[in-house]
Amino acid sequence: MPTGSTLESKTLRDLELLPLDEIRSIIRANTYTGHTAGLATGFQQCNVVILPEVHALDFARYCHRNPRPCPLIDISDTGDPAMRGLGCDVDIRIDVPLYNVYRNGQLEEQLPDVRVLWHSNLVAFALGCSFTFEHALVLRGIGMRHIEEDRTVSVFRTSIGTVSSGQFGGGMVVSMRPIKRSQVDEVMQICTRFPHAHGAPIHVGDPAQIGITDLTQPDWGEAVEIRSDELPVFWACGVTPQAALLEVKPDLCITHTPGRMLLTKLSAEA
Amino acid sequence: MPTGSTLESKTLRDLELLPLDEIRSIIRANTYTGHTAGLATGFQQCNVVILPEVHALDFARYCHRNPRPCPLIDISDTGDPAMRGLGCDVDIRIDVPLYNVYRNGQLEEQLPDVRVLWHSNLVAFALGCSFTFEHALVLRGIGMRHIEEDRTVSVFRTSIGTVSSGQFGGGMVVSMRPIKRSQVDEVMQICTRFPHAHGAPIHVGDPAQIGITDLTQPDWGEAVEIRSDELPVFWACGVTPQAALLEVKPDLCITHTPGRMLLTKLSAEA
Repeated sequence: MPTGSTLESKTLRDLELLPLDEIRSIIRANTYTGHTAGLATGFQQCNVVILPEVHALDFARYCHRNPRPCPLIDISDTGDPAMRGLGCDVDIRIDVPLYNVYRNGQLEEQLPDVRVLWHSNLVAFALGCSFTFEHALVLRGIGMRHIEEDRTVSVFRTSIGTVSSGQFGGGMVVSMRPIKRSQVDEVMQICTRFPHAHGAPIHVGDPAQIGITDLTQPDWGEAVEIRSDELPVFWACGVTPQAALLEVKPDLCITHTPGRMLLTKLSAEA
Repeated sequence: MPTGSTLESKTLRDLELLPLDEIRSIIRANTYTGHTAGLATGFQQCNVVILPEVHALDFARYCHRNPRPCPLIDISDTGDPAMRGLGCDVDIRIDVPLYNVYRNGQLEEQLPDVRVLWHSNLVAFALGCSFTFEHALVLRGIGMRHIEEDRTVSVFRTSIGTVSSGQFGGGMVVSMRPIKRSQVDEVMQICTRFPHAHGAPIHVGDPAQIGITDLTQPDWGEAVEIRSDELPVFWACGVTPQAALLEVKPDLCITHTPGRMLLTKLSAEA
């Protein structure tokens, strides 16, 4: 895999203080393939799903029916790698730091550039991402334990159903962050302002009520401690459409690699 | 045409004070085919577009790219007349008071029931409607001249382009309402709260700036007086997608007849 194999590869630290346009140039040149948390704060970052047009109408309907886990920001024209609704000249084949390539529901490879895979029947979708509200919370002094401990956020399958569309359906996937009891109301208020980034939490307090049996065993990501003055708070998660896609098993499906998001020039606030 | 031809046909006055469910039953029974302004206030009413699946992905993208004129509320499954995202058991073939049926871009007939035309490749779209914000403004003492004078709102083509999608494109169509200069700021604030009903006005004051040459000659609807203490205020209008559709000329396209909207059980406020 080409990850980190280029001579001039960059680290997150190299990029942290750069303006958005410079970061985008570096990502486009494949010299940074790492995660994008904390980069170009104030701008919307996106989950990316690319799939054959035969699935695109059903997937668009699925996103529209499930806006909390799948906040649809932009859809490309069929076969056109330009995404024109993101505030800058996005070429979706090269502007994500690292892509996951799935064939028939199986992860086949990870690539920093998918031009060689692009063809005239593909449609790209950009969906909102939790980095947006996490940054807003941190700015207001509400700590994110997984960031403080440099872990991947805990993500769980739940018993909450999504509204199906064609073959797309299944349970909602959520992310969990421990929040001080005294700050839960403030978190709800802040996150409501970011409907394009999963919005307000969908559950607070009792994981069993949403079908989660053990918070120490996340389905994706890593577990974090929940202290006695904290409650587990659950947000609809962008893994939901990816889980639905893996069940549908399209011939070809390309997504961002988790954490390696598409940077846009849209304001993070709706 | 069946309009008003049923024995037990109702008038707007018969329906005005009825609860939503009763109004919906009367419309479904084809005993009311008139306009729905002022009915079941507090609930979202919708523009309706029904078209063959071959156009549905492009039309969904067109709506997504142009949310001010085309605020997408719900999309049906292909071939399924149920719309499940509107808060009640909508059958889109019978729940609109009166339908316009277009073939190859030409209005062919108006029907209160389109079950005979429904087939397995049709997709229905429900889009937000200006009745929502008009009612909110009237409640706050901001008069709507066309309602006071029992006219159809003035609607104009403009030089503002929409973002195209496939064959769908063309200029934005706007509605115009005279507003007292002293109330324009309040109108902006109120309408911003209704993003699913065209949101805040897109222009205030100078029709020439948006390509309108004569406010006394609307392209649709009727002209109203603009008094010396008033400004013309322009909102993105649901006629925009209909104008785009007439250019695309699908084999079959069914819409609501203007003013005869689909009643839903969604709250009018987003």
